[in-house]
Amino acid sequence: MKKKIVIIGAGFAGLNAAKTLSKNKEIEIVIIDRKNHHLFQPLLYQVATAGLNEADIAYPIRSIFSRKKNITVLKDVVVDFDLENRHVITKSDKIKYDYLIIAAGAEENYFGNTQWKNYAPTIKTLKDAQILRNKILNAFEMAEKAKSENEKKKFLTFIIIGGGPTGVELAGAIGEMTRITLAKDFRNIDPRLSRIILIEAGKRILPSFDEKLSTKATRDLESLGVQVWTNSLVTEINEKGVNIGNEFIEAATVIWAAGIKANKLSQKIPGEKDKSGRIKVNADLSLPNYPEIFICGDITNFEQNGTPLPGIAPVAMQQGKHAAKQILNDLKNKKREPFKYFDKGQLATIGKSKAIAEIKNIKLSGFIAWFTWIFVHILYLTGFKNRLFVMLQWGWSYFTFKKGARLIIDNEN
Amino acid sequence: MKKKIVIIGAGFAGLNAAKTLSKNKEIEIVIIDRKNHHLFQPLLYQVATAGLNEADIAYPIRSIFSRKKNITVLKDVVVDFDLENRHVITKSDKIKYDYLIIAAGAEENYFGNTQWKNYAPTIKTLKDAQILRNKILNAFEMAEKAKSENEKKKFLTFIIIGGGPTGVELAGAIGEMTRITLAKDFRNIDPRLSRIILIEAGKRILPSFDEKLSTKATRDLESLGVQVWTNSLVTEINEKGVNIGNEFIEAATVIWAAGIKANKLSQKIPGEKDKSGRIKVNADLSLPNYPEIFICGDITNFEQNGTPLPGIAPVAMQQGKHAAKQILNDLKNKKREPFKYFDKGQLATIGKSKAIAEIKNIKLSGFIAWFTWIFVHILYLTGFKNRLFVMLQWGWSYFTFKKGARLIIDNEN
Repeated sequence: MKKKIVIIGAGFAGLNAAKTLSKNKEIEIVIIDRKNHHLFQPLLYQVATAGLNEADIAYPIRSIFSRKKNITVLKDVVVDFDLENRHVITKSDKIKYDYLIIAAGAEENYFGNTQWKNYAPTIKTLKDAQILRNKILNAFEMAEKAKSENEKKKFLTFIIIGGGPTGVELAGAIGEMTRITLAKDFRNIDPRLSRIILIEAGKRILPSFDEKLSTKATRDLESLGVQVWTNSLVTEINEKGVNIGNEFIEAATVIWAAGIKANKLSQKIPGEKDKSGRIKVNADLSLPNYPEIFICGDITNFEQNGTPLPGIAPVAMQQGKHAAKQILNDLKNKKREPFKYFDKGQLATIGKSKAIAEIKNIKLSGFIAWFTWIFVHILYLTGFKNRLFVMLQWGWSYFTFKKGARLIIDNEN
Repeated sequence: MKKKIVIIGAGFAGLNAAKTLSKNKEIEIVIIDRKNHHLFQPLLYQVATAGLNEADIAYPIRSIFSRKKNITVLKDVVVDFDLENRHVITKSDKIKYDYLIIAAGAEENYFGNTQWKNYAPTIKTLKDAQILRNKILNAFEMAEKAKSENEKKKFLTFIIIGGGPTGVELAGAIGEMTRITLAKDFRNIDPRLSRIILIEAGKRILPSFDEKLSTKATRDLESLGVQVWTNSLVTEINEKGVNIGNEFIEAATVIWAAGIKANKLSQKIPGEKDKSGRIKVNADLSLPNYPEIFICGDITNFEQNGTPLPGIAPVAMQQGKHAAKQILNDLKNKKREPFKYFDKGQLATIGKSKAIAEIKNIKLSGFIAWFTWIFVHILYLTGFKNRLFVMLQWGWSYFTFKKGARLIIDNEN
């Protein structure tokens, strides 16, 4: 009988696992995702800041596997497991598996302050990006209509919490928007006078990069009008603004990019977790005591050289592929191999011609790092059409200084 | 002192009025719209059927007039008028005018059955198109998961009510989607077996066209699997489906394209209205007894040769321009001119290489009509970028048979 492999999540890990497995026609693969699309999350901040369309960075999962007849795609939500009988329980069904790959990803982490979510939305899904785009663009509209200087100031203050790549990229993009894109479009306000503050609790932004590059990124952000506040702890967020230590800053737009934790499905899995809920795994990425279950991507805690690997796309891609290969090994009665992450380097962009890159011992910044960033992101996008259209949009924005998707789409009547 | 002209609505009428007026630097223009974008409504059905992105057919109003320093754009909602003191009252302000152009457009008309709106959404705004796209794409996902044949059938039945251009274009696009785009992407259902029904109360679809062209359009729809039901009156819509006469059809997706009425603002305007609430105007488009107020576009009832002009883009464009010219005439102490609509013809598309066109006495169908349709729509789109990207998307779909924006974006977690 054909072996049945169920994959939960069509992110970078799940997609790569499915692609690797699909080469063996003797197995049956089911991919379950709550969304109908794979999302290229590294560019999500550009949807939130009106640079790209939703469809430029997302691809229907069904289309990806349209021709792979041994893959079934199911848009459904996994709610529980029956690990002893090897069943995945979804909202609408119960699915038997021989092997299970859990690649359910991560979600935002407000570190216990869940009420902050109402005032400081985060950015994990396309819906989040749409909400954020409406919020950012509406802030300028409200400022234009404001009756007092105080109100105007409140609407022109943007606070981004979290100095990792997402926070830095968002802050840079909002900086560019105010300095360039929107600069001439208003009559009562000058968007260039917007105040953009990037808040980081640690002693520097982008801590995973070399200190010199992190300083370079800070300078780049400042050149776009972004104030970088390090060693700054957020103590309260409400409808009026943010408390940083004892200082209160009034702001209409607050964005949360300060942390993620494992998808809540990890709570349904037995065994050891870290404090972010990520599941600790064996050397081959299998779940301790369950050799038929593999854990991949952001939901995984895999230690290499004494520290857990970060929740980034390259780790997820390599893990998904590795888990799939171990299943194929099993079916061929071959020995399983331990997982080893091959670090190709890291990149972050701040704005036009502004980025930093660290590839092994090579440290780059400025135009060449930016160009590398563009090249890598185009390369890893799914589908020729998305690559082409993202390139065209970027080319367009590069030469015209315009943003392509400056739409507020809400229920206003 | 500079004359101040307030324009309500940045649709085809308002936009053309503003463009014409802006050439006179001695006047001050304020455009008020509840949205931040001008929408190219003739292509909205393509956003609803995953063919185009929202940003391809919408353009920020501020961007259009970025360089016109005598134009102020206000994103606000008009709630009332003080016509005697010449004030427009918005949600957040009260604005004085010397001249007023009301081009507030139309809204959906459920002919008194407002509860039908919950089961049969319509398509007037980008938000409507997003909701419809989610609904259509989700229907296939639900059918794929359905446990019974009955349930499957319900999710694969699509009913479009209204045989005007919007209904025909929607039905054709859904037909293409099921026959081509989605055909190979599912495992438990065959989208080609979907049932698509276009309901028209009158004796034929597209009644404004010549009868032969209307028959041709019916054949084209049928070739895409659409059933065309004429002389069919909808008597009830609920969560289960639609009653047509005495027959009940179960359907998960019902779309309303059966009628429009004037924007509710028309109720705040004194004088005569027709049964759709459209305001009757003088020969120069001014409001009877208020020479400083002009009424343009879908909110207007203007009779030419004994019948009111239809609510279509070319009428709105010409009226907006005409009203603006009369104001410029006033300022130069020139005589006002009566409005006369110059009919350039009409077009409707059914699908790839399928369209009908009627230009004066020339009647076209098939590829040449379709090509004319494409040419005209590209020509009238706002902005070079939108033209380029729409052409590219269409080119892409033409050769690959794929749709560009097949995303379900909702709150599913």
